[in-house]
Amino acid sequence: MEKQMTSRSVKARAHRFAYDGLDRVIHERARLGLLTCLVAHPKGLSFGTLKQLCRLTDGNLSRHLQVLEAAKLVEISKSHVRNRPQTLCRITLQGRKRYVNYLAILEQVILDAAAGIGNDVESKSASALART
Amino acid sequence: MEKQMTSRSVKARAHRFAYDGLDRVIHERARLGLLTCLVAHPKGLSFGTLKQLCRLTDGNLSRHLQVLEAAKLVEISKSHVRNRPQTLCRITLQGRKRYVNYLAILEQVILDAAAGIGNDVESKSASALART
Repeated sequence: MEKQMTSRSVKARAHRFAYDGLDRVIHERARLGLLTCLVAHPKGLSFGTLKQLCRLTDGNLSRHLQVLEAAKLVEISKSHVRNRPQTLCRITLQGRKRYVNYLAILEQVILDAAAGIGNDVESKSASALART
Repeated sequence: MEKQMTSRSVKARAHRFAYDGLDRVIHERARLGLLTCLVAHPKGLSFGTLKQLCRLTDGNLSRHLQVLEAAKLVEISKSHVRNRPQTLCRITLQGRKRYVNYLAILEQVILDAAAGIGNDVESKSASALART
């Protein structure tokens, strides 16, 4: 048992920079922006507002929302507001959980990077971390 | 002039979740791991060590190193150690600078996310940030 644990620990150390937890569905740049935006607006946002906040074209936004909806990270509902059709996008509970797990890995990347950059190099990153 | 600045500020606010600074060459998951690993080892690493630390196959590592070399973020040199050929990979000065700029945007994503997640939700992310 002890041997197994040591072996696991060596393995984890050996793959220290693999960051397997960086879920590719979330990590893609446009989708990372979309999810961060939807996490910050838990009541949901209209297609138009989301498009503007994330600076995406209609086509790109539709495509990425389809991927996020298929992965059950986002739910999309259509309704009418003042007789005009409106598409509302919300992050799901599962989406929120997976996003939070993803963030923990992202923070590990930043901590590893900050350790790598060291104190001898003036870095925006290190000083930004120091302020948090 | 004042009008122009206001207009710029409104524009920046409007595209608040676009994160254009997340350079796609660096952001791809495997390459993010590779660069974080190379930043932490500024003297360079052999192909074999890099492959192990980032848990990549020979083919994947070669392909991503080619992209990073073409973008001048990484330099690759071949030599012989004890009569055996060795490939050494190092992050360039330009690579280091671009990586640090990239990190600053990544930290902004985390700060925006932490603000969005709020205090009412128990989150690994928020507690990890609090510890830094």
